[in-house]
Amino acid sequence: MSILVVGSVAFDNIASPSGRVDNVLGGAATYFALAASYFTTVRVVAVVGEDFTAEHENVFKKRGVDTTGIEHAKGKTFRWGGHYRDNLNEAKTDFTELNVFEKFQPRIPSSYRDTQFLFLANIHPGLQATVAREMRTARLTGGDTMNYWIHGTRQELLETLKLIDVLLINDTEAKTLGGETNLPRAAHKVLALGPKALVIKHGEYGATIFFREGAFGVGRHPFRAPALPIEEVKDPTGAGDSFAGGFMGYIASQGELNREVLKRALFYGSVMGSFAVERFGTERLQSLSRDEIDARFQIFRELTHLE
Amino acid sequence: MSILVVGSVAFDNIASPSGRVDNVLGGAATYFALAASYFTTVRVVAVVGEDFTAEHENVFKKRGVDTTGIEHAKGKTFRWGGHYRDNLNEAKTDFTELNVFEKFQPRIPSSYRDTQFLFLANIHPGLQATVAREMRTARLTGGDTMNYWIHGTRQELLETLKLIDVLLINDTEAKTLGGETNLPRAAHKVLALGPKALVIKHGEYGATIFFREGAFGVGRHPFRAPALPIEEVKDPTGAGDSFAGGFMGYIASQGELNREVLKRALFYGSVMGSFAVERFGTERLQSLSRDEIDARFQIFRELTHLE
Repeated sequence: MSILVVGSVAFDNIASPSGRVDNVLGGAATYFALAASYFTTVRVVAVVGEDFTAEHENVFKKRGVDTTGIEHAKGKTFRWGGHYRDNLNEAKTDFTELNVFEKFQPRIPSSYRDTQFLFLANIHPGLQATVAREMRTARLTGGDTMNYWIHGTRQELLETLKLIDVLLINDTEAKTLGGETNLPRAAHKVLALGPKALVIKHGEYGATIFFREGAFGVGRHPFRAPALPIEEVKDPTGAGDSFAGGFMGYIASQGELNREVLKRALFYGSVMGSFAVERFGTERLQSLSRDEIDARFQIFRELTHLE
Repeated sequence: MSILVVGSVAFDNIASPSGRVDNVLGGAATYFALAASYFTTVRVVAVVGEDFTAEHENVFKKRGVDTTGIEHAKGKTFRWGGHYRDNLNEAKTDFTELNVFEKFQPRIPSSYRDTQFLFLANIHPGLQATVAREMRTARLTGGDTMNYWIHGTRQELLETLKLIDVLLINDTEAKTLGGETNLPRAAHKVLALGPKALVIKHGEYGATIFFREGAFGVGRHPFRAPALPIEEVKDPTGAGDSFAGGFMGYIASQGELNREVLKRALFYGSVMGSFAVERFGTERLQSLSRDEIDARFQIFRELTHLE
């Protein structure tokens, strides 16, 4: 079944110890869409400027992504510049130019209305809520957020969290949102705010999914997917969005919604994140095959499986 | 088969957000011995002062630990004081009084000479090397170290690493020792220094074992054991030594030395570390049962196992 992602499309300048690139296609919706495209049909709602060319659109189309919902506005596309030093887990922002993204008002094309799976990438929680309400017939809504919204628009975010089934955030965001320094305690506080499941991304250490009591089945314990220790991390940009794309894309490709599906989805999320960081920008995500993905899934499985 | 640990026995003052304790029995050899005692017979070489009473010795004896090698010297036992703030991964040292430990010269009792498994806890690498050479008929030697020795006594440590089969250190130590910020690259550099296998402990994210090509069997990939997200971390002191005790103790309890044994050992290490932090000092490690340990092993297994 298809999945709709609402979020940013951007051009990035990225520098890391492995080199630098300028004006490469990026943005949360882009990474998400490309990663999810290996599992299911993806539809995108985003806004771009006049500098977004047919060549850029082709990156999506080549992966079969439906770009009907990409609005072309007057002005320039959202631009972000950042760099990584030795600590590849932390991006330092050099500049942010919102451009056309500043007045982004997500518009859902009528052809998208029947989409059963929805992902609200990291945008203003007020906009996330508007989309979630418009798409309330969706079977499952996933969402992302960040400390900027947790601190700056907490009330709106709390309303949005009631509309999100699975929230995907990182350790720091979970601790900030839950108001607890202990991760599982933070997780339980976040789950009490609305989501049925919470995926906490640990960067190079993988991710953990916590379930609300009784959600998606039974069981007391969280579940953890490892990440493969990768020797060549060229560019961590978009790793989290690629994780979300693999996670949600795999779920959308399955008929059922149960814990076993969500557990495997967590592994597929880790797999897609691990591919994303191997090249700058979205390069690696543009040219994968499902065989390569499943081979790495198998490696991740073996990474923690005892005989 | 039995295992010999050489290291510190101490009295600790520990403060954490969960409370504080003073003068509790601690030290790397103590945590290691208690954790390993659930798997095999443990022998200890350490030094204590006149303040170490029969009551303290009983903590070891109740767990069947052979204390012949605990030397009683004139003066006071090694004392350490430290505290944890919100970041439970990082101890802040309040004081260190080496006392009798300052002149510690490990003496191996003749009844210990046939011990087949050896663990060199975190002491001066020169002393570690002396013990390793004396015990060179051991089937497997494990060892620990820390940044203090990596920076201060690098040459001696490099000699010692040639005598160690499995080195157990944390992320920061691995990166410092390997001179690389990327973990797997650091791991390969450390393995090139001597050890056949390297266990890198990630705190709340578990641990990864890297193998030298062809060591303990075949296979290209490392192996990772998760750690259970724990809601009540009272006192992280000794978690790494308890991990080492579970890891080495399990290996010593097995007839064979192969990757499957080392992988299961990694899980048992995580399990023992997770018990250690639930109470202050060694309290939790004093009163476990093998059933409790195996039940948690099963939970850890399920934590990452797909059906």
